[in-house]
Amino acid sequence: MHNKHINKTEIRIIYADTDQMGVVYHANYLKFFEIGRTEFVRELGMSYKTCEENNIFLPVKEAFVDYKKPFKYDDIIVVHSYIGKLKNVAVKIDYEIYHKETNVLHTTGYTLHPFVNSEGRIVKPHDEIYNIFLKGQ
Amino acid sequence: MHNKHINKTEIRIIYADTDQMGVVYHANYLKFFEIGRTEFVRELGMSYKTCEENNIFLPVKEAFVDYKKPFKYDDIIVVHSYIGKLKNVAVKIDYEIYHKETNVLHTTGYTLHPFVNSEGRIVKPHDEIYNIFLKGQ
Amino acid sequence: MHNKHINKTEIRIIYADTDQMGVVYHANYLKFFEIGRTEFVRELGMSYKTCEENNIFLPVKEAFVDYKKPFKYDDIIVVHSYIGKLKNVAVKIDYEIYHKETNVLHTTGYTLHPFVNSEGRIVKPHDEIYNIFLKGQ
Amino acid sequence: MHNKHINKTEIRIIYADTDQMGVVYHANYLKFFEIGRTEFVRELGMSYKTCEENNIFLPVKEAFVDYKKPFKYDDIIVVHSYIGKLKNVAVKIDYEIYHKETNVLHTTGYTLHPFVNSEGRIVKPHDEIYNIFLKGQ
Repeated sequence: MHNKHINKTEIRIIYADTDQMGVVYHANYLKFFEIGRTEFVRELGMSYKTCEENNIFLPVKEAFVDYKKPFKYDDIIVVHSYIGKLKNVAVKIDYEIYHKETNVLHTTGYTLHPFVNSEGRIVKPHDEIYNIFLKGQ
Repeated sequence: MHNKHINKTEIRIIYADTDQMGVVYHANYLKFFEIGRTEFVRELGMSYKTCEENNIFLPVKEAFVDYKKPFKYDDIIVVHSYIGKLKNVAVKIDYEIYHKETNVLHTTGYTLHPFVNSEGRIVKPHDEIYNIFLKGQ
Repeated sequence: MHNKHINKTEIRIIYADTDQMGVVYHANYLKFFEIGRTEFVRELGMSYKTCEENNIFLPVKEAFVDYKKPFKYDDIIVVHSYIGKLKNVAVKIDYEIYHKETNVLHTTGYTLHPFVNSEGRIVKPHDEIYNIFLKGQ
Repeated sequence: MHNKHINKTEIRIIYADTDQMGVVYHANYLKFFEIGRTEFVRELGMSYKTCEENNIFLPVKEAFVDYKKPFKYDDIIVVHSYIGKLKNVAVKIDYEIYHKETNVLHTTGYTLHPFVNSEGRIVKPHDEIYNIFLKGQ
């Protein structure tokens, strides 16, 4: 038994993120997921840019967000990103976003990413890249 | 038996919507859903602004997107919005986004909205507002 | 003497456009300028996409906005776009944004665009494209 | 003679920031300016949130950007923010954005902010707040 690999990335909420309800506009959480996912992959020892240079792209096929509690201007949020499920041709990343100061869980969600080559075909990535995701579980 | 009420709203994709993959950035579909939802509610005979002036807010509790085919710069998209499920204290809006020129379905998804009053409490809206959703099914 | 060619494009403000001050977030006006500019060029008889297919790109070199009065949620804004100055290798587009209901001028600004070919070199476009801008003055 | 106070804030470019030209979409630089400005004010010993809690708001009255060289996906940018001019009722913040790896200047610009109270009236802030800007020059 081993511990799941979890990346924790901090982001401070800016005005641009908020809407007139005084809270973060809901679409922006998908950007926070992107930031978390990118840092997660980087922490595994590979930048997403490297991934693309090896002709492996991870477009978003599905996205889901559960908004439990809103975040507000100037909050520091902590995005936890980890592999929810790894298959030969796709990876599901799960997210939990906590309020840094209170440690309360505000948001959960996931994104689903097929592995796609430069022609847009779904493929299993070669071992060098696939193993990085394998060990990242 | 009656036909479901469906609002159809057209949006043209701009540079701001795209990312470096040459397609629409995935978070932006939640904005297209917002535009569709707003026009759907307006078509039912009430602006969302009116809703708020009656102290009924519909924050987003859940959002889901299934990205089947990407949209590109200058595409005209057609957002179909309709009520997926209506409960006393929440409404689920379903979306289908079609490519105007080809009529092909590119995206589906939903957003879930509790009815909330100005103190943030979940409530059943008074009949005048609730009936508008009822007849919008 | 002739009248300046002015494109007038309407946009309705959505939640995504606003921030917690209850008004449109200032960066979003550059998106409204983009929408106005695109429709202006289309009205001249050419889509910006066609422009790109002819290897002429108009990146933004400078942008300026003067925020006189804020816009709010659900406002319909009218973006007036016209050529401020046309040179051999660049075009300056001027913008005025009016509140549709009140006809009051809320925002002015400009963007400056060099004509650039696919290698990123500044060029004078061939006559077919250049003349479209010429007659658009 | 003294050195100007300059805040330097790093931001990593994400997919959401880019457009289909493969570079950062021009409107997003105003968000980078906001991040730099916020950290600049925080470094002076006051959060912008505190500012607002003292009923002093700094809406954006003018914004200008000169795009000299584009930034790309995964670049780390360094936003330099400092006071360009301080008057009794307004402050102009200047920005320079450098590429972290190459140290090359890619972008310059400014934003102009009147001091405004909670009724929207332009005012000189009380000394406690004004002096923070004074010493920040």
